[in-house]
Order: sequence, then structure tokens, then C-alpha cells
Amino acid sequence: MEMLTKVLIELLIIIAGAKLVGELFERIQQPAVVGELLVGMIIGPHALGWIQGNEIVHMLSELAVIFLLFQVGLETRLSDMLKVGKKSFWVAMLGVVLPFMAGYAYLAALNHDYKIALFMGAAMVATSVGITARVLADLKFLQRPESRIVLGAAVIDDVLGMIVLAMVAGLSQGEFSTLSLIRITVVALAFVVIVVLLGTWLVRKLSPSFRKLKTKNMTFIISLLTCFGLAALAQIIGLAAIIGAFLAGMVFAEINEEYDLDKKLEPMTDFWVPIFFVVMGSQVNAALFTSGSIIIMAGIVTVLAIITKLVGCGAAVLKDGLPSSFIVGVGMMPRGEVGLIIAAIGANMKIIPADIYAVIVAMCMFTTLLMPPLMKMAVERKTREQS
Amino acid sequence: MEMLTKVLIELLIIIAGAKLVGELFERIQQPAVVGELLVGMIIGPHALGWIQGNEIVHMLSELAVIFLLFQVGLETRLSDMLKVGKKSFWVAMLGVVLPFMAGYAYLAALNHDYKIALFMGAAMVATSVGITARVLADLKFLQRPESRIVLGAAVIDDVLGMIVLAMVAGLSQGEFSTLSLIRITVVALAFVVIVVLLGTWLVRKLSPSFRKLKTKNMTFIISLLTCFGLAALAQIIGLAAIIGAFLAGMVFAEINEEYDLDKKLEPMTDFWVPIFFVVMGSQVNAALFTSGSIIIMAGIVTVLAIITKLVGCGAAVLKDGLPSSFIVGVGMMPRGEVGLIIAAIGANMKIIPADIYAVIVAMCMFTTLLMPPLMKMAVERKTREQS
Repeated sequence: MEMLTKVLIELLIIIAGAKLVGELFERIQQPAVVGELLVGMIIGPHALGWIQGNEIVHMLSELAVIFLLFQVGLETRLSDMLKVGKKSFWVAMLGVVLPFMAGYAYLAALNHDYKIALFMGAAMVATSVGITARVLADLKFLQRPESRIVLGAAVIDDVLGMIVLAMVAGLSQGEFSTLSLIRITVVALAFVVIVVLLGTWLVRKLSPSFRKLKTKNMTFIISLLTCFGLAALAQIIGLAAIIGAFLAGMVFAEINEEYDLDKKLEPMTDFWVPIFFVVMGSQVNAALFTSGSIIIMAGIVTVLAIITKLVGCGAAVLKDGLPSSFIVGVGMMPRGEVGLIIAAIGANMKIIPADIYAVIVAMCMFTTLLMPPLMKMAVERKTREQS
Repeated sequence: MEMLTKVLIELLIIIAGAKLVGELFERIQQPAVVGELLVGMIIGPHALGWIQGNEIVHMLSELAVIFLLFQVGLETRLSDMLKVGKKSFWVAMLGVVLPFMAGYAYLAALNHDYKIALFMGAAMVATSVGITARVLADLKFLQRPESRIVLGAAVIDDVLGMIVLAMVAGLSQGEFSTLSLIRITVVALAFVVIVVLLGTWLVRKLSPSFRKLKTKNMTFIISLLTCFGLAALAQIIGLAAIIGAFLAGMVFAEINEEYDLDKKLEPMTDFWVPIFFVVMGSQVNAALFTSGSIIIMAGIVTVLAIITKLVGCGAAVLKDGLPSSFIVGVGMMPRGEVGLIIAAIGANMKIIPADIYAVIVAMCMFTTLLMPPLMKMAVERKTREQS
């Protein structure tokens, strides 16, 4: 069979499977991404073997993640970030530091290599706020102060997550030393700050000229080319490609509404991005979960991921009362795409072994699955208290 | 450098180059596709060598063509096709038969293999009507009967072009015999007829259920999955992948407006499709055009391509007078994406050698470049005649 035919059939199986199960999960009000991971586990080489890890499909899944992080970046405006206020800032900050330390400390205590421990910490950092936003909207709670704090914190959390990933990915190349820690931190922070400040300024400055271009969808195309360019640049200076993609999104977030960039991107990402989650899932060897020690580890990591967000994020708003701080903590709990991407990067770098990889995927799935019922409980308690 | 970084940089160079020159060509009112081919020739391995024919980029360019032909199909409704009337039908029919025979006869006369002659004939068949439609609109002539005939004929011309390609691609695999000619013709016609009739019926039938799906952009995603599936199926039964993609587009053309399928596809194709034309151009060895015999051949093929459409399409509407039939002939003249794709398929099958490939690309470029000035002349003569 020709290569093109093989690629087409594999993509057809992956996307059709993802969307079928995604539709089912939507109907039972569960996040589609969990369904996509499950599809991957089932049709992947460890189980049914319907997909075999074609090199081109793998590259397409890497491109899909670049588009996804660009899309996340498009929703992260620098101006919004500066507006969210102190509360959101501290919710994000503590909600990053505590999970990272807990993840690192737990794996270090189990005598794993420091690189593995770093990646575990990083994977526990980033909140996936999209699902929270939808649950809050369903509960008609989106206009309340707690929701605004969570949504504001999620923006900063994304940026902090990228900086943590940049540092971890950098530190995992070559030997660890205080000097390399300082160098990587400086490079990561400098890249983020320079790209965001210079890029935002440039895009605002050039935006009126974009209007004069005759080629259809040219601003959209320029934004994607910037995404490719910054993704490549991030890799060349030793960071991860998705960091560049995310920052490109942030830079174009300034003119997103003016040019409908996200609306133009959405049909493409809705089609392509599931490839990534299915490929992610396909790399999980579900048979590992028959081992008691892996189940225990997944349980502990999941509990740590939940408690550190509840305590860290909650502590930052404790003054508003326990019910409110519980809502904020639960809202910041789900780890989704970014945690998974960090696991994938670690696996690609041959740092994360199969068991730790499976544990991270399980943690991302359970923190995401547990959030909706917990949030419902928390919101009901808060509402009862007020009436 | 990592593979992902290489792919990102190569895509960046290709798309940025295509869009930059495309913008320039738009401004001097020339078709962007000609600019994209030129970019490919300049940055390709035969000249500057900025792109080197990365395997993944090549596969992405094949996927881009599948999206392109799906988009062309979306504009080709079966119901429109049945409505266009006899005149358009005969314009399309004669405009397919004459160029095919001329291309085949010329290369056969030069003692080329019959497979090469078949591909040359096929590449001379399909009109690229998009450019014509724009020129007619610019001349404020789009509502006139001649324009309607051309636009109607272009729809049928697309379908006939696909059937010719199916037959040629089929005949070029294995030995030629009357039996294989009959078999391929039957397979090609059966595939087209069954897919279009059954598909159109199914899509109309299922369309109300699509509305009930909860996943975002699900009808759009289903249409693309159908495209992948039919493209793979077409390849498996020995036709070309783009035939399946085109037919999938035709099938979903029925509900295109209802679900805004083309609007959702357009940003993606505007971004990806230039990859194909740049890669196409990069495979042209421009140095070949220093050879006198190649220049003569390109000249003869271009002249044949022009005359056969003028005579064939014009003859079908000769009753309307010479000025009208000249407008129709000129309108059907430009060969664009389909001619180029056929050349690419022939080259991939190792049937079309480098010199014939360069001749086909030149023919597509010149028939496209010559149409706008000729159409301006023809329309002015017609208008003068009437006033």
C-alpha cells in the first residue's frame, strides 16, 4: 500500500474514533479529551494495534499540539494578565509552586533520577481551565467573584507553566549544576519576556498595515507563520516548540478579535488536535495498571495533584472564607493538555519511562474527571450558605 | 537539528515565500498560483536549494492537494450540473476531447511512450475556472449568458477531468490492452457514478441528524473524514486519491451552505495549499528552458492547449456568433491546479520525465497568464459590437 493511503487510513481511524467517543462523552457530560485518551489506549499498539505509530502521523500529532498551544495562547492577552489583580496572581503562583514541589519531592523520595522528578513536578503544574469554565457556566456561576479569580489565575498559570517547562526541558539536557539552572532560568525568562513585550508591541504597530494586504486571510496566515517561526526558534535555543507556539498566540491575542483569528483556527484544530490525544493515549500501556505499585503511585500522584491545588490556590483566597477558597481550589484542579504535552516531551526525550508516563496520563484523566462533581458540591454548599 | 524544527523551518520558508510573491502578483493583477510556482522554482533544489524535498513536507503537500480538490468539489453540486443545460455540456465535452486528443497525438508523433502521451493529454484537459470567474467579475461581465455558459461548463469539465485522470492513471499501471481500457473505464465511471449518487442521497438523508450532534464543527469533521476515506479508497482501487477527495466534496456540496463547510475549510486551505504549488515549482528544473527543443515543445503544447479550447469550446456555441464563442473559448483556456496535479501524479509514478514535467508546468502557467488580457480584448469587442 502506498504511504499516502496508509497515512489517510490511520488518520481516518484516529479522528473518527476520537470524535465518536468524544461525542459519547459529551452526551454523558464528561470531557471529550478523556474519551480521546481512552480511544488511543484501546486502538494503540499495546491493545488492538489498529494504529502502529506511523512516523508521519506522529509528526502530524506534533504539529497538532503546536496549533493547540497557539490557540491557548490566543486566549491569553498580556493586557488581561496585567489586569487580573493580586488575588489571581497569588492563586496561580501558589498553585504552581506547591504541585511542582510535591511532584518533585515524591519522585525524589522514591529514588528516581532528578530529571524524572523534574518532569513529574512540571506535569503537575498547569491547570486546564477550559473544562472548569464550562462547568461553571453550566452551574450559572460564571459571573461570580470566585469564577473570575479562577479564570484570571488560569491565564497566569499558563505562562508560569510554560516557564516551568522551559526550565525543566533545559535542565534535562546535559548535566545539572547551579550554573546551568541559572542559565536556563535566564534564557527561559528572557525568551518569554522579550517575545511577549516585543511581539505585542510589533503586532499592535503592524496591525493597521495588515488591513491593506490583498491576499485572503493574510493576517491569519501571518499569525500561523509567526507560530511556526517561534516554535522552531524555541527548539533551537533548547526550549520546547510549544512554548514558542504559545507565545505566538499570546502576541496575536492582541488582535485576535479584530481579525477573527480563533474562529478561523477552530475548525482546523477541532479536526487535527484529537490526533495528538489519541497518539498520547496509544503510548500508554494499560496493562501496567494491573501492577499494584503503579496503581498506588497513580493514586498518590493524583491525590497530591488535587491537595496541592486545593491548599495552594485555596490559601491565596482564604480571607474570602472556606467555601469560596474551596471553589477556587477545585476550579484549578484539572490538569489537561499541558500536563499531557509535558509527559510526551519527557517521553520523546527518553527521560520519562513507560510507568511514569502512564501515571501522569492517569493523573491528568482523574483530576479532570473529579472536578465536575466536586465543583457541583462546592457551588451548592456556597449557594446554600448564602440563602 | 530535530526533525520537527527542520519541518517547521521548511514550511515557514515555503509558505512565507508563496504568500509574499502571491501578494505581489495580486497587486499586479496576476494569478497568485503562477507566483507560487515561480517561488518554488527559485528556492527549490535546482536553483537556490533553500528547500531540499523533505519527505514529511512532501506528504504535507499531498495532503494539501487532497484538501484543495475537496474544496473544488464543494463548489460542484450535482443538481447544478444537471441544470447547466446542453450548451454548457457540449462546451465542456468538446473542450475535454479536443485538448486530450491533441496532447496525446503530439507526444505520440514525437515517439514518446503511450503512457507519457496519455498523461500529456490528461494534463491539457481540465480548466481552472476560478481565475476566469474573477476576471469576468472585474470586467462586470459575470451576469452575461457567455459567463454562465463558462461557469456551468467548468463544473462538468471538472468531473470529466477526473474521469480522464482515473482512466489515464489506471491505464498506466500494467500493460495496455483493449481489455484493460474497458476495465479501467468501467471502474472509473462506476466509482464516480456510485459515489456521487449514493453519497448525495446519503448526505441529504443524514443531514438532519448532523444537527443533533453535540461535538463542535462535527458536520465539517465528518465531511473531511469522508474525504480521507474516499481518497484512500480511490487509491486502493487504482485511481488517484484526489478523485476521491473531489467526489467527497461533490457529495457534501449538497449541504455546503447549510453548514458553512467551505467557510470553515478556507482559512486552512489558504494556509496549506500554497505548499503544494511551491513543491510543484521546486521540482521544475528551470535550466531545461535553455534548451531550444524544450522551448519549442513548451510553445507548441501551449499553443495546442489554447487552440483546442478556443475551437472545441467555441464550436459548441458557434450559433451565438463568433464574438460570444471567442469569449467562451478564452474563458475555458486557463489550466491550473488540476493540470499541475496530473503532472505531479505522472512524475510520482515515474512516467513523466523532467523535461515533459517542465513543459506541462509552463503550459499551465502561460495559458493562465494569457487569459486575462485575451478576455479583456474579447469582452471589449463584444461590447463594442452591441453598442
